[in-house]
Amino acid sequence: MKADRDFFSKTQSLKTPFIIYDLQKLEDNYQRIKSSFPEFKVFFVMKSNAHPRIISLLRDLGAGFETASLNETSELLNLKVDSKKIMSFHPIKSPEFLQFLNKKRIDIMTADSYQEIDKIAHDFPNAKIVPRVVVDNLGSAWQLNGKYGIEIVEFPHFFRYILRKGLLPWGLTFHVGSQCENISNWIKAIQICDKVWEDAWRDGIRLKLLSLGGGIPVKYTHIVPSIEKVGTVAMKELSKTFLYKTKPVFTIELGRSIVADVGVLVNTVFGTATRGEINWIYIETGTYNGLVEAIETDNRNFFPVATQFPRRRKKIYNIGGPTCVSLDTPFVGIKLPRINLGERVVIKNAGAYTTVCASSFNGFSPPKEYFFQDLN
Amino acid sequence: MKADRDFFSKTQSLKTPFIIYDLQKLEDNYQRIKSSFPEFKVFFVMKSNAHPRIISLLRDLGAGFETASLNETSELLNLKVDSKKIMSFHPIKSPEFLQFLNKKRIDIMTADSYQEIDKIAHDFPNAKIVPRVVVDNLGSAWQLNGKYGIEIVEFPHFFRYILRKGLLPWGLTFHVGSQCENISNWIKAIQICDKVWEDAWRDGIRLKLLSLGGGIPVKYTHIVPSIEKVGTVAMKELSKTFLYKTKPVFTIELGRSIVADVGVLVNTVFGTATRGEINWIYIETGTYNGLVEAIETDNRNFFPVATQFPRRRKKIYNIGGPTCVSLDTPFVGIKLPRINLGERVVIKNAGAYTTVCASSFNGFSPPKEYFFQDLN
Repeated sequence: MKADRDFFSKTQSLKTPFIIYDLQKLEDNYQRIKSSFPEFKVFFVMKSNAHPRIISLLRDLGAGFETASLNETSELLNLKVDSKKIMSFHPIKSPEFLQFLNKKRIDIMTADSYQEIDKIAHDFPNAKIVPRVVVDNLGSAWQLNGKYGIEIVEFPHFFRYILRKGLLPWGLTFHVGSQCENISNWIKAIQICDKVWEDAWRDGIRLKLLSLGGGIPVKYTHIVPSIEKVGTVAMKELSKTFLYKTKPVFTIELGRSIVADVGVLVNTVFGTATRGEINWIYIETGTYNGLVEAIETDNRNFFPVATQFPRRRKKIYNIGGPTCVSLDTPFVGIKLPRINLGERVVIKNAGAYTTVCASSFNGFSPPKEYFFQDLN
Repeated sequence: MKADRDFFSKTQSLKTPFIIYDLQKLEDNYQRIKSSFPEFKVFFVMKSNAHPRIISLLRDLGAGFETASLNETSELLNLKVDSKKIMSFHPIKSPEFLQFLNKKRIDIMTADSYQEIDKIAHDFPNAKIVPRVVVDNLGSAWQLNGKYGIEIVEFPHFFRYILRKGLLPWGLTFHVGSQCENISNWIKAIQICDKVWEDAWRDGIRLKLLSLGGGIPVKYTHIVPSIEKVGTVAMKELSKTFLYKTKPVFTIELGRSIVADVGVLVNTVFGTATRGEINWIYIETGTYNGLVEAIETDNRNFFPVATQFPRRRKKIYNIGGPTCVSLDTPFVGIKLPRINLGERVVIKNAGAYTTVCASSFNGFSPPKEYFFQDLN
């Protein structure tokens, strides 16, 4: 979806702030992933965007869903998602959530600690366990190591513990870190899983599912490896590993790469200020009501920004959000065509981790959500 | 409100996560501030906690309110707060908000840029302008300089601009930064205001209101200057300044120091894990659904934490929130009595900037809110 003249004229009557999603783009992204990872089952990570129409379209396209909480899972079931197409890969699940999963027979789930196995054994006997393996996160924007994962050396013991507790060792999963630009992380992770899988096989444990997790990067303000590139590298590595074994069911769990570039966030400039040499504009969506990811990277320049009048002379801007708070400065020192009070600013690739993380702090509501296909 | 045995037994039947507020403590805090700042009008900063019962009690105690948005202001008026007791100190207000303030005759407001003056002149002629002065933020946990404020040298010109645009120069305000432990910031700020005020007087501008802003620190995990100490220092400085002038109306705008230690957040441990040498517990409230302030300080050790069984041997813990996300680790390396799955953890001083900033990311709801006075 291009933020061109046509886009601005079609959306002019909508009151800002809003996010507009393109369902055609969503479908294209899903198909690109399916083609890049042939024979893989694709699971949509619900936490990235839980809008019912997005969930419903992905359901109709045949996607599975990865869920982390009772509320999320319950919403999926309300939207008529087949329970067989749901997995929970949150490594730490509350007892209440486990009991719910048991009731609904959603039985494939991760674990990455002995304590979690004890808990699952208590609340969901016979569950299928897909341990999360510690892998390299170098080169990822959000690194997960330290918080989650089982070390390789720990595995034979961990699998025996799963069996002893009456659960089923079912496969392996890993997470290279969110927005991973270092393709060799996948290569190394697949090699690690190959080793763990083979050791398990030798111990008589027949694993069935290999999950490649998430982390495929999205182009925000700089070029990153494409879905096709990551797919090619992963498929090549898989053809060299997992030999002499029953072929695993391959899955991949993606959020950002399915939905990020499907959404465009539109704001109006409601204030401007010149402070010394610095030009400030203030927009209706900031750190607290939609753009929390903008401040999680060091340079405060995470999302691509566009304006209504691209041909104007450029200036350097800081962009403040709507609240009074110092942290509410999602962009610092970015170059934009000159922009005035009342004009519109567009934040691209705002389809993932925006509205789902938004609060109404200071009385400023999260952006409303619309679909491009509904506009005339 | 002590997190003692009595507290745990009284709150045992409430389902976690929840915040419990003590209205008596709220009243005590308000009275302490009134005594520490004699003759000051105290304004509650609504963004810190917008619960209707907290607003209503403060209204009945005689407090005024500081508001930043149309929604906040509208909520204050719904709660029968007198419009004369409302000021808006957000330096950048949307045109829509200014028109609303005009309609409701809420006429005292800040500004800190020429562009804002133009906007106010257009949407609220005759408004009373309290410019925000740039002051030192050294020693404050959240520093605001760069984002807001007018430099001293700019003032004579700024006041003339306000007058030329048909608005009324009404006073001065500043902000030493949130959670300010460096008392000399107030001394310097008062001295700066004295100078600006005197220059304005000589130019024939009779200012009426001096606002000391916010920033009084709250004791979280280490001792900070008390309200009384800050009051003593400020009052002493005010007695040495603002001489030979009509006495200003003094105001102070406080959120954190009125409401932070009024709230206690209670969570259940829903998961545990041992990863190498590190003990992890996972609780129901984290970065995204209530504890965003916990991760804004470097050491991930912002709030005091207590447990149900204080006499047990201590261990070092990391505490993860409920979501799958790496950022959702509100506490790192804190010492706690040994704690098990299903036991309760208490986060103290959780009355400010918690529920108001919370989202339901990953399907995890913000904590419910209760009042200690309602329990048996």
